[in-house]
Formats: sequence, structure tokens, C-alpha cells
Amino acid sequence: MTTNEIVTQIQKKKSFLCIGLDVDLHKIPSFLLEREDPIFEFNKAIIDATHHLCVAYKPNTAFYEAYGIKGWKSLEKTIKYINQNHPDIFTIADAKRGDIGNTSSMYAKAFFEDLSFDSVTVAPYMGKDSVEPFLAFKNKHTILLALTSNTGAFDFQTKEINGKEVYKKVLETSKSWKNSENLMYVVGATKASYLADIRKIIPNSFLLVPGVGAQGGNLQEVCKYGMNQSGWIINQFFSRNTLCLKRSGFCRSSLKKSN
Amino acid sequence: MTTNEIVTQIQKKKSFLCIGLDVDLHKIPSFLLEREDPIFEFNKAIIDATHHLCVAYKPNTAFYEAYGIKGWKSLEKTIKYINQNHPDIFTIADAKRGDIGNTSSMYAKAFFEDLSFDSVTVAPYMGKDSVEPFLAFKNKHTILLALTSNTGAFDFQTKEINGKEVYKKVLETSKSWKNSENLMYVVGATKASYLADIRKIIPNSFLLVPGVGAQGGNLQEVCKYGMNQSGWIINQFFSRNTLCLKRSGFCRSSLKKSN
Repeated sequence: MTTNEIVTQIQKKKSFLCIGLDVDLHKIPSFLLEREDPIFEFNKAIIDATHHLCVAYKPNTAFYEAYGIKGWKSLEKTIKYINQNHPDIFTIADAKRGDIGNTSSMYAKAFFEDLSFDSVTVAPYMGKDSVEPFLAFKNKHTILLALTSNTGAFDFQTKEINGKEVYKKVLETSKSWKNSENLMYVVGATKASYLADIRKIIPNSFLLVPGVGAQGGNLQEVCKYGMNQSGWIINQFFSRNTLCLKRSGFCRSSLKKSN
Repeated sequence: MTTNEIVTQIQKKKSFLCIGLDVDLHKIPSFLLEREDPIFEFNKAIIDATHHLCVAYKPNTAFYEAYGIKGWKSLEKTIKYINQNHPDIFTIADAKRGDIGNTSSMYAKAFFEDLSFDSVTVAPYMGKDSVEPFLAFKNKHTILLALTSNTGAFDFQTKEINGKEVYKKVLETSKSWKNSENLMYVVGATKASYLADIRKIIPNSFLLVPGVGAQGGNLQEVCKYGMNQSGWIINQFFSRNTLCLKRSGFCRSSLKKSN
């Protein structure tokens, strides 16, 4: 999917909502547990009920891998269902992968080719040659961890390298990588006030902003600091627990066509 | 598997060799491609031929995920084959996972419970609460990326935070995490000269040292700088391309019982 197509969706639906598909079998309605594939059935119900409200779905791979082959089957069925029924919706494999070159190439093949996701989340710790194999795929997107929503983000990400925080170093360095136009970034909503500085480094990049809701991120603050100043593109997705977003119409007025 | 059991294996076999199981279907003998599961068949042949020479096997998950459900089946069959036939051999899921707490718990469940690996490699970027869920598993081991073998390691890992390189900060910080006794670390053989300093921070930890051979790491240098100074325990595993190790008998004289 091209970034233009994502922008078109955002404008058409007046939404920049991303819905996480992280099924916990202990929390879903018990009648679903009697089905052959409760995880897929739950996802299907969520997708059927929300596809007109959101612009992205984000299955988290851990919640499938935990059930082995059965879980991987649920993941495959879920992404196929989205791609077949809602090909206009952007899909994110929240997988946090990253390894040496030939290994990252295999991960890219897994998510971009075998499963046909539009994008995958990637950890930056191993640097350029661990990320570029993902960036080599045309019209596929690599969502790099910059500043995450958890408290552990303060262990390393916010520490300073020559007076500059690690996450800023990641943002700046990644801009020089080959095919960096295929990069998007994770910036946690719990650290909304950091977004103003982040926007100075990557004014036009799409951001995946998890952490609104249960994790304590404030949607109004995210919009205040994170939207690009020109107001031309809302380069943000919001993760689960923000279903209220579309209904409240918050930030709608800023949605204008551009790329 | 306990660390004592690993040490016993190292002493018994006079080897600290770890063999990677990263099958590339383009490189294996063509007759295997006619089998129902070429990846498993190749792994099985490698395991049958090497189990008396090594103390660890390390499947790299990317090389299985790239083939979807079929690949995950090959991974499951491979780990089952090792655990059933060679329960004394340490197993490493080279997966480079790491996410917020409840997600890391699901990854830990995937590799420690569903697949019954002894250990998993984990990326440190998201900090304490992304790693501790793995450490909570008794007699399971979390192999944290410290200084990796690729050139991208110089992008962030060797940059200094208050005069201390990021990878040293990772090593030091991780020692304070809950159940840190279940930590091991990845230190690339291509950066053998760094091992002397690393050993000052983590004198007794097991190290997974990839990069000997094809990536250019020098085995003699790794042994020179990386072995703990007392010579009591060889807390190292060596990755693929070092099959010569056992045959050459290199470093054997330092193998003594201790923990």
C-alpha cells in the first residue's frame, strides 16, 4: 500500500484509528472458546464491527505465537480475511523483529510476502544493516521503534548520547538509511510531550502511537504535540483502546488532502 | 535446564560449540527438496551428525517464519526431535523478541512453554519491563543482545551514554533486574577485543558468541579475551561455522568443573 492510499483512507473515513488484534483467550466471550478457531472468530467479529471506523489493523504476533502452529494459523486467517474483505485497510504486523542482514531479509519475507502485511514493527538496536532489508520492499513499510510507551523506555531510550537522547539518535540516523522513505516510527502516547521535538526531526513521517487508554496516554495531548504543524497530513495511527476517537470526531477538522 | 547441567555438558563433551539451525532451502542438497519437510530433514541430519560434538543448538526463527505455517511446523518438529533424543543439549530460540510486559509474557510462553526451548534471545531496547517477563521462568534463560556481530552494532550500541557505551550500559543495568541470574548475553565474535572489558562487568555470565567464521570473528581472540580469568568455567557458546572447534581441541585445557 502506498502512503497516498493511506492518506486517502484517513480522509475518506475521517479517522486515523488503528485497532490492535491481540486476543487473550482468558478475556473473550466464553461461547467463542467452543469454536474451532476462537482467536480468528473474535478477530473476525471485531473486524466486521469496526472496518468502517478504522484505517489500520495491528495483530500482535506474540498473541498468536503463544499458541504455536494453531496460533500461526489464526494469524494467517486473520490477515487473509482483512486483505480479502478490506484491501483498503493498512495492516501492521506488530512483531518487533530485527537481526543481522540475511535474517532480517527472512523476517521481511515472512511478513511482507508470506503473510502479505503492509508493514512490520522493527527494533533499532542492531542498526542500519538490520533494518535496511525490510526497507528494500517497495510499498511496504517498516515501523521503527523510537520512543516506546512502557516505563522501560527510560532505561535506555531517553539516555543521552553526546547530549542527544538515544531515541532522537535513532530517528536522525535512520533518515540516512537506504529507502528511508519506507520508514514510519513508534512513539508512545504516554510520552506525548516529547512529540513536539520528535516532529522537528521527522515532520512528515507516519507515527504509530500506542498507549492511549489503558496505558495512560492522553489523546488530546498526542494531537496537540504530535500533529505536524502545517495541518496538512495527520501522520498518525492510534492503537487499541481509542475506539472513541472516530465517534468523538476529535481532530477531524485538521484532515486535509496532501502528501 | 540449569546452568550446572550446561557446565556438566561442556565438561563431558569438552566442547562449548553451539550449532545454528538456519536452513536456507536454496543451499541444501537438492534431493532433500523432494521430501515432505526438507527443513526438518536437513536439521535432523545435522543433529544426528553433530550431537556428540556440541552443547547447544540454535534455530533462528526467521528461517522458519519465512515459510509460514509450514515453517513453524518444521521448527516445532526440530525442537521436539532435539528434546526427545538429546535432552542434555541446551536449546536456543534465536528470536530477538522484546515488547511491553504482557506481550513479552506471551513470547516467553511461546518459546519456553509451547516449544519447550531452554532459552531465547531478546533485544534490550524497550528496557526492564520488556525483559523481566522472560526472566520469570525458572531454569529458562534469556540471552540479551549486548554487542552484536554486525556492522550496524556501531550505529547505537557503541555510542557513549555519559562516557559509557550503550552495550555496557545494557550489561550493567540488566544486572539489577529481577531474576537476573537467568540472563546470558550476546557478544559478537567480530568484536573479540571488547570482551576483556565486558568480562569485568559480567565475569561469570554465559555468552553466546556468534560471528566466528563467515562473519570474520577470530576464535583464538575470542578465547583470549572472553574466557573468565579464573579459568574455572568456559561461559561461552560458539555459533555455527565453528565445527572445527571440537576437533582441534582448542581451549580444552581450561575446562574445569565449577559453578
